[in-house]
Amino acid sequence: MTERMPQVTADANQGEVRAGHLSGLVGYHVRRASNAMVADFAEQLQDLGIRPTLFAMLSILSENPGINQGLLGRTLGIQRANMVPLVSDLMGRGLIERRDVPGDKRAFALHLTRAGAAMFEQCHDRIAAHEDRMLSRLDEAERDQLIDLLGKIDPDA
Amino acid sequence: MTERMPQVTADANQGEVRAGHLSGLVGYHVRRASNAMVADFAEQLQDLGIRPTLFAMLSILSENPGINQGLLGRTLGIQRANMVPLVSDLMGRGLIERRDVPGDKRAFALHLTRAGAAMFEQCHDRIAAHEDRMLSRLDEAERDQLIDLLGKIDPDA
Repeated sequence: MTERMPQVTADANQGEVRAGHLSGLVGYHVRRASNAMVADFAEQLQDLGIRPTLFAMLSILSENPGINQGLLGRTLGIQRANMVPLVSDLMGRGLIERRDVPGDKRAFALHLTRAGAAMFEQCHDRIAAHEDRMLSRLDEAERDQLIDLLGKIDPDA
Repeated sequence: MTERMPQVTADANQGEVRAGHLSGLVGYHVRRASNAMVADFAEQLQDLGIRPTLFAMLSILSENPGINQGLLGRTLGIQRANMVPLVSDLMGRGLIERRDVPGDKRAFALHLTRAGAAMFEQCHDRIAAHEDRMLSRLDEAERDQLIDLLGKIDPDA
């Protein structure tokens, strides 16, 4: 056993810092976990230039070819104004394309390009590895439980 | 019962959009929950100008007066370079102050000022209300379980 260090110079990992109030806040734990996940995601996909939101867009487009921009945004909880630069980014890199919707001049159907589909597959595999590593201390049932509990947090409360 | 709309114009809440891949990713759910919590937090504390990270710093300082800047950063998982503007922000607003540490010329002990302590209390009450509202669908046991599961996500994996 090492001698107990004075609190002010102790390492945070030794539990010498009191964090009673923060420890009781669910939001604090959600945000820390999210930051850790996003940081690792960014590191794993850095060379591809794909951030979590861009990947989510590619993923929805791969399963819903031709979805319109508004519905894509609502599905992912992205505000309309924020969708514009995100769509431009993916279009500028040739990963998605807009097609006219017959009979609706204001709507655009979004599709993955061939390069976009390949990018999705590449990201998909790396993200699977990233999740396995980050979540190695959670078994399958615990992962499902975590998703279930997170789903009860009310975005419209 | 309303008639089933064609998928591309359906509302996302009606489950017409397939999100099979994303739905299976824990990281996606953690990030969405975090974004929702942070957005509501920001809204509730907007007039006070306190973001989650700044509140976390005030909270740790209220429980650990005199903690040094490095340990505060490590406790909260904030990188050293990022701590500098955060500490400057709180100091500039008169919420915290630096005091010399006797015998260590390179270290600074951080303390809440009287205004900082008052700000912490004000934030504290609003955040309690924010959490109660956002988490109304989770009972006490589920909140504890959620915190426990989030703690198993490995930041150093």
